[in-house]
Amino acid sequence: MTPIITKTELEVRYAETDQMGVVHHSNYAIYFELARVDWLQKVGMHYHEMEKNGVMLPLSRLNVNFKKPAKFGDTLQVITKLNKMPDVKIIFEYEIFKNEELITTGETVLVFVDKISMKPMRCPKSTQELISSFTS
Amino acid sequence: MTPIITKTELEVRYAETDQMGVVHHSNYAIYFELARVDWLQKVGMHYHEMEKNGVMLPLSRLNVNFKKPAKFGDTLQVITKLNKMPDVKIIFEYEIFKNEELITTGETVLVFVDKISMKPMRCPKSTQELISSFTS
Amino acid sequence: MTPIITKTELEVRYAETDQMGVVHHSNYAIYFELARVDWLQKVGMHYHEMEKNGVMLPLSRLNVNFKKPAKFGDTLQVITKLNKMPDVKIIFEYEIFKNEELITTGETVLVFVDKISMKPMRCPKSTQELISSFTS
Amino acid sequence: MTPIITKTELEVRYAETDQMGVVHHSNYAIYFELARVDWLQKVGMHYHEMEKNGVMLPLSRLNVNFKKPAKFGDTLQVITKLNKMPDVKIIFEYEIFKNEELITTGETVLVFVDKISMKPMRCPKSTQELISSFTS
Repeated sequence: MTPIITKTELEVRYAETDQMGVVHHSNYAIYFELARVDWLQKVGMHYHEMEKNGVMLPLSRLNVNFKKPAKFGDTLQVITKLNKMPDVKIIFEYEIFKNEELITTGETVLVFVDKISMKPMRCPKSTQELISSFTS
Repeated sequence: MTPIITKTELEVRYAETDQMGVVHHSNYAIYFELARVDWLQKVGMHYHEMEKNGVMLPLSRLNVNFKKPAKFGDTLQVITKLNKMPDVKIIFEYEIFKNEELITTGETVLVFVDKISMKPMRCPKSTQELISSFTS
Repeated sequence: MTPIITKTELEVRYAETDQMGVVHHSNYAIYFELARVDWLQKVGMHYHEMEKNGVMLPLSRLNVNFKKPAKFGDTLQVITKLNKMPDVKIIFEYEIFKNEELITTGETVLVFVDKISMKPMRCPKSTQELISSFTS
Repeated sequence: MTPIITKTELEVRYAETDQMGVVHHSNYAIYFELARVDWLQKVGMHYHEMEKNGVMLPLSRLNVNFKKPAKFGDTLQVITKLNKMPDVKIIFEYEIFKNEELITTGETVLVFVDKISMKPMRCPKSTQELISSFTS
């Protein structure tokens, strides 16, 4: 499928810095999450509604490659990419840019989980159709 | 009643520092929470069991007074004090020490909330009795 | 002086929720900080530049009153108010609204600190003049 | 070289949970950091002293594999392993256990950076010798 790509902008928060004077690495997992929630919303899925409808999306894998630091006062762009139709899992790739320079890349693998049974499930048909309608 | 006082030790985490080189102020709410959970446990209440039993304790007020900063590498002592038998709310006072020097004080007011109805409730009788058994 | 009031909008992040299903209380200190940085910027002060210029603004007091919870998916408005010309300290008041309902209030007291000497200092004249130009 | 392995125990904090009722995934980067700081300390390196001595250790890569969730009230054991003498980078592997069950694995790659020049540097000789003295 054609990748579905979104761009999310965020401002570094003071509380996200550490004593090295840069964004603490644990925050990139949160930046990816923000960008992912934004991706889902732009495609028509509201994550807080998905959870209410009984579908949870916990992470099964997180990879982050740190190239350059981000600082307080920086505005960052997160490019979020879906390359493959989700089945039991959904894989997103991320690129974070600061002033057009690529500073971080990463990937998350999330699994669809039924909120009641807490068991893995397949990606809902309606979600797959929504994704299909954005790609060709 | 005689105050019930506990002491909780914690190590500052790297991720808790900010670019001023000190613990970011938002973490003190978390330090108070750690100390409060420890207080409850020492008195015989396990907060994760209280929640399972349908009692939640959200905050209604938080006050923190910052006197001196804490740094990565510091070991801190949190003194947690209950001065008054809880009724619809429970009030804790905190003092944080670093090498015997008082660096932060604070207070939290928490309210008892029924997990099902999400309505305020009185402190369970069993909790009051437990507290009574520690004081005189 | 006439109060200087700004409004800052933010979206609750998933990572800010806790197992009660609401925003964990420690995040309100961060919401206040975001709003304060935005207030400063709107008045013409860029906090990351202030720090570079040797002025730090650590907290000396934080008060938060929690009225109603915020949830993932919520958009919040933070009203930040300065009522008094800063001298050795600067006091901000905050009101957080969710769909026009006031859910949290708070106050922070910050002190001006010289980054080199780490000693308290008075609010820079240029800052006072900037503030004067916004009020009458 | 023989791997150098340490074990670090930690208690899940309430603030680390999210609305799924489990530890939010971003906290595992912090758990790894705690365990790494503990590893360094057990081998005789105090990370806050390393930074004072001009050596910083930012992350260049983070991988986390989530197998089972952790919950508030859980005590976790983090096994930290160094398999290879550090040169320009130092690689740690992590395994997190909950009641003897492996719930998370991960790896971090950190690079030695000179705090003044902010340039990559080789692992200090004294650090390599310290590590050598622990292995055979």
